[in-house]
Amino acid sequence: MTRAQLIEQIFKKRSYLCVGLDTDLSKIPKHLLSAKDPIFEFNKAIIDATLDLCVAYKINTAFYEARGLKGWEEMEKTVNYIPATHLKVADAKRGDIGNTSAQYAKAFFESLNFDALTVAPYMGHDSIKPFLEFTDKWTIVLGLTSNAGAIDFELQQLIRQADVLDEGVHVHKQETVFLYEQVLTTVSEWGSPENLMFVVGATQASEFVNIRKLTPSHFYLVPGVGFQGGSLKEISENAMTRDCGLLVNASRAIIYASAKENFAEEAAIVAKQYQAEMAGYL
Amino acid sequence: MTRAQLIEQIFKKRSYLCVGLDTDLSKIPKHLLSAKDPIFEFNKAIIDATLDLCVAYKINTAFYEARGLKGWEEMEKTVNYIPATHLKVADAKRGDIGNTSAQYAKAFFESLNFDALTVAPYMGHDSIKPFLEFTDKWTIVLGLTSNAGAIDFELQQLIRQADVLDEGVHVHKQETVFLYEQVLTTVSEWGSPENLMFVVGATQASEFVNIRKLTPSHFYLVPGVGFQGGSLKEISENAMTRDCGLLVNASRAIIYASAKENFAEEAAIVAKQYQAEMAGYL
Repeated sequence: MTRAQLIEQIFKKRSYLCVGLDTDLSKIPKHLLSAKDPIFEFNKAIIDATLDLCVAYKINTAFYEARGLKGWEEMEKTVNYIPATHLKVADAKRGDIGNTSAQYAKAFFESLNFDALTVAPYMGHDSIKPFLEFTDKWTIVLGLTSNAGAIDFELQQLIRQADVLDEGVHVHKQETVFLYEQVLTTVSEWGSPENLMFVVGATQASEFVNIRKLTPSHFYLVPGVGFQGGSLKEISENAMTRDCGLLVNASRAIIYASAKENFAEEAAIVAKQYQAEMAGYL
Repeated sequence: MTRAQLIEQIFKKRSYLCVGLDTDLSKIPKHLLSAKDPIFEFNKAIIDATLDLCVAYKINTAFYEARGLKGWEEMEKTVNYIPATHLKVADAKRGDIGNTSAQYAKAFFESLNFDALTVAPYMGHDSIKPFLEFTDKWTIVLGLTSNAGAIDFELQQLIRQADVLDEGVHVHKQETVFLYEQVLTTVSEWGSPENLMFVVGATQASEFVNIRKLTPSHFYLVPGVGFQGGSLKEISENAMTRDCGLLVNASRAIIYASAKENFAEEAAIVAKQYQAEMAGYL
């Protein structure tokens, strides 16, 4: 899916909602457990119910891998069930040396038909570039994440050396930046706003204006709204661009809205609330 | 597998070799392609041939995921084929927010019977701790990796603030360290040398003495020997401890030693060369 297609969907549906399919057998309605394929039945019902309210689905691969072979099959079925109108995101946080990252790219962009994959930046350029080589696919690199552990490394201060032009003279400058800022600036040189997004957690509201300044045109995948407590209003006011530039994800708040037989209808009600609020910000 | 058991195997076999099963259908001998299960047949032959020469096998999950459902099945069969005498490492570079990391831990430590898993540190403590909660399992966190991209973030300089005691007086100190050093020091507080190792690339020889100083008792998983050009001699001289403290991995140099029918014998010959050299350093 291209950037233009994604933007078109956002303004058509007046929504930048991404529904996260963190589907866990212990949390889905009990009546589904007797189905042949409970996880897929659950996902199918959620997708059918929320299709008009969101522009993307995010599959958290951990929940599927935890179920082994069966789980991988459920992931494959789910991604194939999502229509081409929606961005299909594998939230897999992959990344390794070049030849291995190329294999992960093959796994998610070819073997599984995902449009986008989340990638961890720690190992640097050769761990990220293999993903960026795919046409009409998206690499979504971790910037500043929504979890408590962001403080340990992402928010540590780094020394950046730079040669800058000051009134025509080259001057050596030393400044301090957060690690996540260095990641945003460095990684954005490897891709373009047409194939690269960043993960920015909704719980990191105080940093949103700064993040948007560093990466003015990129889309952000924003987890942390709903269950993790991030505010949709704050994100939207501080980081929305002319092209929207946001995909806000909610997982548990939507898919586990109810554990009863009407779980899909209840999920749609919550998704509709997000969509209505988003329509106001667009 | 416990640390004591691992050390026992190392001194019994006089080897700290880990054989990396980065098995790629396009690189295995052609005569295997007609087998029902070529990847597993290949791995089985490699394992049978190298069993006495190594103490660990490392499965690079990307190569299996790239083959979809079939690949996941091949991974499962391979890990089940490796005997309990050998440390079974999933080189998967996972890591996510707490509840998701817990699912990855379940995937590799329960659903698949691995002893150890590589984990990326970028997201901090709640992304790593769920793995450390498993008894007799190992979390292997990326420290300084072997690839060119290590320069982008791992080798960037960070400012560390610390209150230190100087002749009985608390003094505020500011020092600069590499990001990877901060990762080693911080992460080693979350686990112990009984359940935590670090990935340290063999191509980073100049840093080895410093790394050992920061983490004197931990085992390192060392990729980058062989195909990537790292020196076994340098690593062993600079980072070996009384308990050995090293698992040196070679993948392509061993498993693709020959593409002919005798590939497994040729693999064993290369593995034997590593083992003999290692015996000399132990």
